[in-house]
Amino acid sequence: MPPTVRLLIACPDTRGIIAAVTRFIAEHDGNILDLDQHSDLEHGEFFMRVELDRRGFGLSPQTFAAAWEPIATRFRMQWSLAWGERRKRMAILVSRQTHCLSDLCWRWQSGELDVEIPIVVSNHADAGSIARQSGIRFEVCPVTPATRPEAERALEQLLGECGADFVVLARYMQLLSPELVARWPHRLINIHHGFLPAFKGGAPYRQAYDRGVKMIGATSHYVTEILDDGPIISQDTTPTSHRDTVDDLVRKGRDLERVVLARAVRLHAEDRILVSNNKTVVFD
Amino acid sequence: MPPTVRLLIACPDTRGIIAAVTRFIAEHDGNILDLDQHSDLEHGEFFMRVELDRRGFGLSPQTFAAAWEPIATRFRMQWSLAWGERRKRMAILVSRQTHCLSDLCWRWQSGELDVEIPIVVSNHADAGSIARQSGIRFEVCPVTPATRPEAERALEQLLGECGADFVVLARYMQLLSPELVARWPHRLINIHHGFLPAFKGGAPYRQAYDRGVKMIGATSHYVTEILDDGPIISQDTTPTSHRDTVDDLVRKGRDLERVVLARAVRLHAEDRILVSNNKTVVFD
Amino acid sequence: MPPTVRLLIACPDTRGIIAAVTRFIAEHDGNILDLDQHSDLEHGEFFMRVELDRRGFGLSPQTFAAAWEPIATRFRMQWSLAWGERRKRMAILVSRQTHCLSDLCWRWQSGELDVEIPIVVSNHADAGSIARQSGIRFEVCPVTPATRPEAERALEQLLGECGADFVVLARYMQLLSPELVARWPHRLINIHHGFLPAFKGGAPYRQAYDRGVKMIGATSHYVTEILDDGPIISQDTTPTSHRDTVDDLVRKGRDLERVVLARAVRLHAEDRILVSNNKTVVFD
Amino acid sequence: MPPTVRLLIACPDTRGIIAAVTRFIAEHDGNILDLDQHSDLEHGEFFMRVELDRRGFGLSPQTFAAAWEPIATRFRMQWSLAWGERRKRMAILVSRQTHCLSDLCWRWQSGELDVEIPIVVSNHADAGSIARQSGIRFEVCPVTPATRPEAERALEQLLGECGADFVVLARYMQLLSPELVARWPHRLINIHHGFLPAFKGGAPYRQAYDRGVKMIGATSHYVTEILDDGPIISQDTTPTSHRDTVDDLVRKGRDLERVVLARAVRLHAEDRILVSNNKTVVFD
Repeated sequence: MPPTVRLLIACPDTRGIIAAVTRFIAEHDGNILDLDQHSDLEHGEFFMRVELDRRGFGLSPQTFAAAWEPIATRFRMQWSLAWGERRKRMAILVSRQTHCLSDLCWRWQSGELDVEIPIVVSNHADAGSIARQSGIRFEVCPVTPATRPEAERALEQLLGECGADFVVLARYMQLLSPELVARWPHRLINIHHGFLPAFKGGAPYRQAYDRGVKMIGATSHYVTEILDDGPIISQDTTPTSHRDTVDDLVRKGRDLERVVLARAVRLHAEDRILVSNNKTVVFD
Repeated sequence: MPPTVRLLIACPDTRGIIAAVTRFIAEHDGNILDLDQHSDLEHGEFFMRVELDRRGFGLSPQTFAAAWEPIATRFRMQWSLAWGERRKRMAILVSRQTHCLSDLCWRWQSGELDVEIPIVVSNHADAGSIARQSGIRFEVCPVTPATRPEAERALEQLLGECGADFVVLARYMQLLSPELVARWPHRLINIHHGFLPAFKGGAPYRQAYDRGVKMIGATSHYVTEILDDGPIISQDTTPTSHRDTVDDLVRKGRDLERVVLARAVRLHAEDRILVSNNKTVVFD
Repeated sequence: MPPTVRLLIACPDTRGIIAAVTRFIAEHDGNILDLDQHSDLEHGEFFMRVELDRRGFGLSPQTFAAAWEPIATRFRMQWSLAWGERRKRMAILVSRQTHCLSDLCWRWQSGELDVEIPIVVSNHADAGSIARQSGIRFEVCPVTPATRPEAERALEQLLGECGADFVVLARYMQLLSPELVARWPHRLINIHHGFLPAFKGGAPYRQAYDRGVKMIGATSHYVTEILDDGPIISQDTTPTSHRDTVDDLVRKGRDLERVVLARAVRLHAEDRILVSNNKTVVFD
Repeated sequence: MPPTVRLLIACPDTRGIIAAVTRFIAEHDGNILDLDQHSDLEHGEFFMRVELDRRGFGLSPQTFAAAWEPIATRFRMQWSLAWGERRKRMAILVSRQTHCLSDLCWRWQSGELDVEIPIVVSNHADAGSIARQSGIRFEVCPVTPATRPEAERALEQLLGECGADFVVLARYMQLLSPELVARWPHRLINIHHGFLPAFKGGAPYRQAYDRGVKMIGATSHYVTEILDDGPIISQDTTPTSHRDTVDDLVRKGRDLERVVLARAVRLHAEDRILVSNNKTVVFD
């Protein structure tokens, strides 16, 4: 794949948007490699993702906004542009369960995830060796109910230092304050070990076992201030039976969690997700 | 397959149960074709299903209970025996959505379901032609809030007349009274068009759409007096995306509902389900 | 959904295609409801599907071609246009297994398939009652090795009479001659009861059983002159185990076949499929 | 779970086997925790797996065979017993692709796989750091067409030295000689990156891409002297589309391969697999 520029657009649905956008790109010598769009007829909203070849495109990060302004204004667009000249910086938070962390590290090393991982932060020391084996800085931020505010300040200090663009909660079992969440809108990705909206909150595999479900699931979503209620990015399920103990569900669930979280990370890293009405539009 | 006798057992878990049961069967010249068992270590319960060749078995429906009594008493068993000399009689309740009804009729005609279908009852006339095309008696029992008690009496009258062994709610959109439910324990099978315990109650596909889930599901379960809370028999899921409207979810869901309900019916008809602690043990 | 016009395009990949097409549509007051495109970088090919609101579009079936000609020529396009003023006419061929036929009839009656079904043709009389119950003309064309040429002539006569746009082989177990196949390119849809390219030819469930696979599948594809080798439209799989007999595989497979064939029919009916290099591009 | 003894039996199908076996176990104070059995009516074969509590069982590894002999002879049984007093020793072979290796190491370290891993052998040096990070001995056995016989001797020397019970080919891209294969019957587990029997041999993802399949798969199987033809243990599939390049298929396939191979290893380690007629009976 050549280097690409990615443009994400959300605006009220009306006629002529695609023509206006593609004409603009053509007039600036852009070559569209991928275009995907979606009209939400119920809410009258329009979403579009355009990926174009950076080579030969007649605009630069400096000149794009001014040239684009008339179209954005005319269609009342919310838009964002990823020029792709550098990879996104992904910080990882983790507690004691390390399967998602080691999976992300492995995918990253194998070239599957187009990101930098400047830091792994945990409230425990357990995950240190995994991070370090991958050559990633590791920091411990212990959290107790009494020290939560300071711990969060230290955490955000670290995220700022390392220039994190987004944060992945790879089985991080601490609640984040609404203030912190508000500062990272659609930039905190969590993996919930249950098929949301079923089994919110703690011990979802235990809940699933007690309810006697015949399938379990995992859900990756953006974090909002309401627990386990943010926009869902990806989900998957796997069959279970009466023979499965809670431990079996935990084991089966780990395989789901790893795949579902990695998928969400890849989609986010490639600028494939738009959020509206607490739901995601995923252009994959 | 030869004609078979099926024995279902639930009792406190202890050693020697399998040996005692299989020795008993061998002593009466029974040939075991299939034996499945499960120990719930958490609750200290034991479950077993034995299917044996009816030909050559030395006991009859008349003599079995007396011979079996000592073992049942010794292990404090709850047990049931299906001699299989006649097929179970399955009544179907349906409202306006007929996809599950026509699916069951088709499977029945193709020999996939080992049951009789003596009657289809609906609170509307719509389903009549489907039932009659399959040669099944069709009756309408209209229900309004005011007439619910009489309607239920009429319904149970019909179920009694036709000798129903169990009842399938193939998208029957009326609530059944706790009294009726209590008279048919583990003999009322419902299909819920959502992935329980998510999206209980009405309009589950609408709920799923509004939540923005990336998979939808369907759930077959025994009916209990608490809505959508009975023991789950079978579930399945299918992926969705932001492109799916509520109508698309309904369409995709119909395919799930048909398969999941048919599976539950087959498992029940073949005496493969035991219930304990509001959960099912499914020997398939 | 409003009434729509659908434009399918395949051409050598180059820059400016999307801009040219969307500008053309905008200049003729077309409102694009859905646009999907794909570049095959390996073969240097470009594929696009545009669906636009028919209401208000400034061109007609009579005037479109002339206006469109310059763009089609400039980009060396193969293209087709479905004006959508009438539903496609789908003929169904079937032999003795009727599960796919009755499934298609049911979906059609429930409004899931946007087609007309003018005729069902079979080499046996068995399927007649299903077709007639749905109000569809039914004809028998018996086939023996000796009479194949005449039988095919009679078949094509019937297809011509009833104005069939495409033909679905819903478990039709007769080979079609290369000549007939050549006259219906990408207009003959078959359901193969195996996971192609495994288990080509006859008795695929028996082949799967003998090989001891742990999943079985079904495949819908366009028919080409090489048996079971045409462009694949849709596939699905389901788990199996050593407990499954050949009959169990047949039963499980029927559920796959019905869903996979119905999906292919819907995709074709909605003009969502392009074919290139014996593969399909499916815009769903 | 308590420590267990596992008994695997295959014999001609006849009546009384289960009763005889369970009576024998009861007479020696064995407590059956799990019993699973299967009759292959087509071939007249009977298969059974019994898992019993080692504590309190009245026989020992030394005394079992003599006591068991009469039953084994009477029913012409092939049988094996895993006393479970030590964990199976699993050697791993790997070439340059390390995703399966690192996945097995991770599962092993997390306690998911009940085995020892005494050695990892590769024909390249690449995998060394992964093995060593998990504290596993790593050896390189380079292979060229000219040195294959010596390389295999060196390999078997290593397997012997470390007391390997079975060998996992975790993306080992060298053919093994028929002689070596014959010395490890049902003890060589391979992961094939295709949905067997489709796409045998080299570059299965390329083959899948060229054929245009809409799902890809992975297959774990025992190695026999015929390439990619041994008894299948586990398979899984995932959907693909025209948008997937060969590289995308490789990426998606890696997730399948890891899960499918790990499942096969777990089933083998827990003595849950019997082989007959080049097919597996998997008691899970």
